[in-house]
Amino acid sequence: MALIVQKYGGTSVANTERIRHVAARVAGYRQRGDQLVVVVSAMSGVTDSLIKLAKEIMPLPNEREMDMLLATGEQTTIALTAMAMHALGVPAISLTGAQAGITTDGVHTKAKIMNITPKAVHELLDGGSVVIVAGFQGQTPQGQITTLGRGGSDLTAIALAAALKADLCQIYTDVDGVYTADPRLAPDARKLAEISYDEMLELASLGAKVMQSRSVEFAKKFGVVFEVRSSLNDNPGTIVKEETKSMEGVVIRGVTLDRNQAKITLIGVPDRPGMAARVFKALADGAINVDMIVQNISHGTQPPATDLSFTVDKADLLKARKVIDGLRSEVGFRDVLADEKIGKLSIVGVGMRSQPGVAAKMFDTLAQNGINIEMISTSEIKISVVVELAKGEAALRAIHAEFLSK
Amino acid sequence: MALIVQKYGGTSVANTERIRHVAARVAGYRQRGDQLVVVVSAMSGVTDSLIKLAKEIMPLPNEREMDMLLATGEQTTIALTAMAMHALGVPAISLTGAQAGITTDGVHTKAKIMNITPKAVHELLDGGSVVIVAGFQGQTPQGQITTLGRGGSDLTAIALAAALKADLCQIYTDVDGVYTADPRLAPDARKLAEISYDEMLELASLGAKVMQSRSVEFAKKFGVVFEVRSSLNDNPGTIVKEETKSMEGVVIRGVTLDRNQAKITLIGVPDRPGMAARVFKALADGAINVDMIVQNISHGTQPPATDLSFTVDKADLLKARKVIDGLRSEVGFRDVLADEKIGKLSIVGVGMRSQPGVAAKMFDTLAQNGINIEMISTSEIKISVVVELAKGEAALRAIHAEFLSK
Repeated sequence: MALIVQKYGGTSVANTERIRHVAARVAGYRQRGDQLVVVVSAMSGVTDSLIKLAKEIMPLPNEREMDMLLATGEQTTIALTAMAMHALGVPAISLTGAQAGITTDGVHTKAKIMNITPKAVHELLDGGSVVIVAGFQGQTPQGQITTLGRGGSDLTAIALAAALKADLCQIYTDVDGVYTADPRLAPDARKLAEISYDEMLELASLGAKVMQSRSVEFAKKFGVVFEVRSSLNDNPGTIVKEETKSMEGVVIRGVTLDRNQAKITLIGVPDRPGMAARVFKALADGAINVDMIVQNISHGTQPPATDLSFTVDKADLLKARKVIDGLRSEVGFRDVLADEKIGKLSIVGVGMRSQPGVAAKMFDTLAQNGINIEMISTSEIKISVVVELAKGEAALRAIHAEFLSK
Repeated sequence: MALIVQKYGGTSVANTERIRHVAARVAGYRQRGDQLVVVVSAMSGVTDSLIKLAKEIMPLPNEREMDMLLATGEQTTIALTAMAMHALGVPAISLTGAQAGITTDGVHTKAKIMNITPKAVHELLDGGSVVIVAGFQGQTPQGQITTLGRGGSDLTAIALAAALKADLCQIYTDVDGVYTADPRLAPDARKLAEISYDEMLELASLGAKVMQSRSVEFAKKFGVVFEVRSSLNDNPGTIVKEETKSMEGVVIRGVTLDRNQAKITLIGVPDRPGMAARVFKALADGAINVDMIVQNISHGTQPPATDLSFTVDKADLLKARKVIDGLRSEVGFRDVLADEKIGKLSIVGVGMRSQPGVAAKMFDTLAQNGINIEMISTSEIKISVVVELAKGEAALRAIHAEFLSK
């Protein structure tokens, strides 16, 4: 008998038919004798409808009231899911985040879980019930309803698994697991049987939209092993866990292509200390997230000047241009170029640490395929390059073929 | 400075535009210096949609889970209403029933309020906020979410007014107040300036759908004076309060027509003790609510037999027929007649107690208008008669003209 925490996202509980499917799956596990805690999100579309109602009233609604509003989405799903268990003759009871003992800080709309008191959940499990818990929400010690922000339901599941010392945590979603590449881009992409937290974190931040980074970070911090798998079939998913020796044998775990970035280049920035700091401080003040930064070597000009390139989210490009234009006289660069037609290609793998020459092999593969590299950025387990957007998919396929095809 | 509890029903908060109107009204009171507690229902249609979702999953959902589900309706409205106050620059905070200190028993879907601890509400009012409270819901001492059943939001408002010792309780609805008759039936119907709890109770139970009886009973028990008025205009409404001397000067307060009843007559019931008891016990066992009962005089037959007539809700007629058919051999009546084409006309007024001859005048008025009376039932402050449905409206107008036109 195992204690299993399962989490089902919005598309898995999109309507009453899907909720019934979830209930049938849970009932199947229970029949094997397992104890089940089921974390559910709001039915897909519900959170957006609630946000739309709020925006009809005011553009920037009070965050405490947003939490009061949004928490109803998951509360609706838990009640319906419990009913669907009952319809199968399985005892089940729903709990709000507060009732499940999830205590958070008071930072509304992006609260942090401070503490979980799983007494009620344990008692209900021991009494033979399946326990259905509202994802994405908690309560402050003062009794205020809070929500955990994007990806909050995954976080609820992983935090509950940690607090309950669960044997297994399963994150059900609409994909089969974590792949070596997006199968729509690389037809020979393979599902990974396992991946380390760090690799998963790099993939999450690189645009592989399986899970939010914070849930993976939380799992890493508390050593919660979890499985990402599909609610639409019975295929085994991908196990996410601490790095093992055997993982190092695999040089790279996956390749991603992020098409949501744009590149800005400042031409002829005077080569004086503090110029880059000035630029990125102004962007940060404008709440613009900068991803890659490359400062090219100084031109042979007098006075010395350099070119400074960086990438931002496409959605922030206009705002970033405005900020930069405001700096022109102060920083004294010669020109600004903006390029939306870029793709950021990244390879990730803990095996890189012990395998020299991975970068060289990546660059060589791209060169052999006639793909020019515009920017390069690396970390211990990741290499990212910016390429022309039109060549992004070809680049991804070439890299996948070189590193990941069997 | 007065402490005012206002309650807005589902149609008053049907969409964000209506919610803005509610907020504007509340802001107006607050500008006068009043302290405001605002109780809101679910937006109209929301509760029905939630029930529909539940029924898609199972026909008779668990009642604890129904409460978990339905409580989201009011929680949505309080958040949106608080935002609408903010949009007008008025500090406001929303509270669920539990947060407002409303403790109920554990009878899910029709919980009774046991106790209100208005500490949080008082503190927020003293801090200068308008307090928006979710109607229709509470929490058991064990932390289970409960709902109060039909008319529950009115009950929340009246109970909060009692607990807070409010100066005024206003029930905003889509009618202007309590009328001498339904204005759609009697064009010269007048709005009443005041009415006693007992008269209001008789009117509520007679099909004047302004408020549920239990809220009026609660107000009577705790001496909460309240006003029923429209959220669509600024007209004063009807004050509901304890009977005063001056009320006795008015013989009848109003006339109602209930078209939702059906009449069943058992012909030739053997005139033996216990026969009526047997019939009504069987109907009660079938959860069929019987309203009027008339046993006609014994026919001059051998053995002696009587006719027994009673009324039930039209919706229960088929079920009642089945119950009665099952009793035929045991009770031994000769025949059963059912008549759906009836109307129950009632006059209500505390003045009847001290004014003889009201019934005679009512019957005479109907006779003069060629309207036959099929059944009669009276209480201390009410006289009801059953007439042919087709003549119901004419009967109501004749009675209104005789007793209530000025």
